[in-house]
Amino acid sequence: MNGTQFKVLGKDGKARLGRVETAHGDIDTPAFMPVGTAATVKAMRPESVAETGAQIILANTYHLMLRPGAERIEKLGGLHEFMNWQRPILTDSGGFQVMSLADLRKMSEKGVTFRSHVDGSKHELTPERSMDIQRMLDADISMAFDECTPFPATPEQAEESMQLSMRWAERSKDAFVERQGYGLFGIVQGGIYKGLREQSADALKTIGFDGYAIGGLAVGEGQEAMFDVLDYTPGFLPEGKPRYLMGVGKPDDLVGAVMRGVDMFDCVLPTRSGRTSQAFSRRGTINLRNARHSDDARPLDENCACPACTNYSRAYLHHLVKIGEILGAMLLTWHNLHYYQELMAAMRSAIAAGNLEAFAAEFADQQARGDIEQL
Amino acid sequence: MNGTQFKVLGKDGKARLGRVETAHGDIDTPAFMPVGTAATVKAMRPESVAETGAQIILANTYHLMLRPGAERIEKLGGLHEFMNWQRPILTDSGGFQVMSLADLRKMSEKGVTFRSHVDGSKHELTPERSMDIQRMLDADISMAFDECTPFPATPEQAEESMQLSMRWAERSKDAFVERQGYGLFGIVQGGIYKGLREQSADALKTIGFDGYAIGGLAVGEGQEAMFDVLDYTPGFLPEGKPRYLMGVGKPDDLVGAVMRGVDMFDCVLPTRSGRTSQAFSRRGTINLRNARHSDDARPLDENCACPACTNYSRAYLHHLVKIGEILGAMLLTWHNLHYYQELMAAMRSAIAAGNLEAFAAEFADQQARGDIEQL
Repeated sequence: MNGTQFKVLGKDGKARLGRVETAHGDIDTPAFMPVGTAATVKAMRPESVAETGAQIILANTYHLMLRPGAERIEKLGGLHEFMNWQRPILTDSGGFQVMSLADLRKMSEKGVTFRSHVDGSKHELTPERSMDIQRMLDADISMAFDECTPFPATPEQAEESMQLSMRWAERSKDAFVERQGYGLFGIVQGGIYKGLREQSADALKTIGFDGYAIGGLAVGEGQEAMFDVLDYTPGFLPEGKPRYLMGVGKPDDLVGAVMRGVDMFDCVLPTRSGRTSQAFSRRGTINLRNARHSDDARPLDENCACPACTNYSRAYLHHLVKIGEILGAMLLTWHNLHYYQELMAAMRSAIAAGNLEAFAAEFADQQARGDIEQL
Repeated sequence: MNGTQFKVLGKDGKARLGRVETAHGDIDTPAFMPVGTAATVKAMRPESVAETGAQIILANTYHLMLRPGAERIEKLGGLHEFMNWQRPILTDSGGFQVMSLADLRKMSEKGVTFRSHVDGSKHELTPERSMDIQRMLDADISMAFDECTPFPATPEQAEESMQLSMRWAERSKDAFVERQGYGLFGIVQGGIYKGLREQSADALKTIGFDGYAIGGLAVGEGQEAMFDVLDYTPGFLPEGKPRYLMGVGKPDDLVGAVMRGVDMFDCVLPTRSGRTSQAFSRRGTINLRNARHSDDARPLDENCACPACTNYSRAYLHHLVKIGEILGAMLLTWHNLHYYQELMAAMRSAIAAGNLEAFAAEFADQQARGDIEQL
């Protein structure tokens, strides 16, 4: 059977407990995907990423097509072999990052031409080229090539952009080489406009995908507007396919989105924060640069089983980040990824037990009760 | 019995197989100590440093007295507890680095006053203060406070500097608090002048130390001049105490020095090289930035059991270092430390088997036969 498979194993309100089956293994959902932009989850060995409980990572087509090149990775056996990550990989289409990073972009019906931000070399990304690159990377889940509608956008701008993405979605589907265990996800666009989101979802369902992403969020609209869109958009999508909210988010974004029926997430937040002295915890975020930690012999979180919390004091972590030691980034990244995976596992357990609402209330209460730094 | 203990377990020519016993465990010699300047061996978790086989690390008094402060580390349980390294630690005296890093240094018979290169704060290092700091850090092996004689130096300059260091050595010994398993090493100075080295060694032996370091080398004199000094200096030192060559060196420096009777080494080379794309190997050094590695699916060294060589290709390591990913520094540092520990273990085996000379010849041949990149 071609494609990836998805099983809904349980429901609690709109939230779903599920499993995505891919060529490189299964993914329990709701799932968080750490970002491995350039074929490395920054400051982590892949073996350590697996130890945090992550079952799938995301890699970026735009970065990898430029360096080291998709053809090169294919020759070296694909991305799993290249970076020694044998679990599933999802690649984005390159559409979002070509618009935010590349120089001299020129968009047309056909696709986008641009110059590399690295060396000025000229490249083209089209739905067909994006599918080809993602195939060469050996992505278990490929994403349709789309335009991420900017925010804010008028209804007219949002519709025009969405319609282009739907035409590109069809071309992506046509160009995608079907294989067992390899899936292609479409991306719902339409900005903050319910009618457009419904039109977009309908267009994608007609084409038919292995999963459906919700794109164009987490681009500055704020959590309230995002949750508004998530109140209705999952309902436009088929029950039997996974739903992936792209580029999200903070821990409370994840909880709110899971309650609204989202199954998959990716975000640079835990890894990037790990390199900028920010740690996530049950009690909210904690800035390890703060001088108040300098004499604190307690672990970051006494209930956390990650190496940063098991082996070191806040005073030591503070020392490391204050002087810019690589080990500080290594330990805080590990902690943050561990925390994100624990949060997803806790939500899966809560859905299975039918008490996600109580879990979410307790989660919000813990975060609000305050700063771990005050404990 | 106060101090650290040393047992000579075997000899092969001038080379010795031995064991240093300290409060935090034993060190098999010849031994290489990775440098953990600011209470972290850069880009390595301490657990990983132990996995390379390292039995002792070096930490820097100058850096730690400025940040986070020796008093703070003492309150937090000492350096072992602070950085989660439960094996032995040797600290330098601060003398070398205060002269190379601090601002507005002023040297007198009493010691050195200076301003921190970090925040301009005023500090003083004397033999007494250095002993106090190293005690607060809980160093298993403390080093006498000395002046590292600059190179080049006239015989007069070298003698004056050495005599000052000998007076400071005596004050260091007086200030050192004796405890079981904690040792104090003196440092032989005298530049490249045999007579001065002998005078210095005699002065130190009269004071009496748990071990004897050879200082003032690897400061620009070159390997030939260094080996000249090592041809005679170990012979001025007691047979029953460990000999430590400070700040050395390249792999062939280590082999040559072990053959001349040196037991302990420290150097930033394997860790610093790991952060600048250089790998050490049986076949010499290899620069992973070189474009010739970009499509090379082979491991860095197929005979090496470190994670970098076991799990990744040269092409992947090249990719990481080319784009400046932290994982590149992490993997190459691990490889280099692993290689250094393997080299020391191989020399210990060769001494035990009485064939160090053959080992050294084979080692030189392998390094000369060339570049691993050509294989």
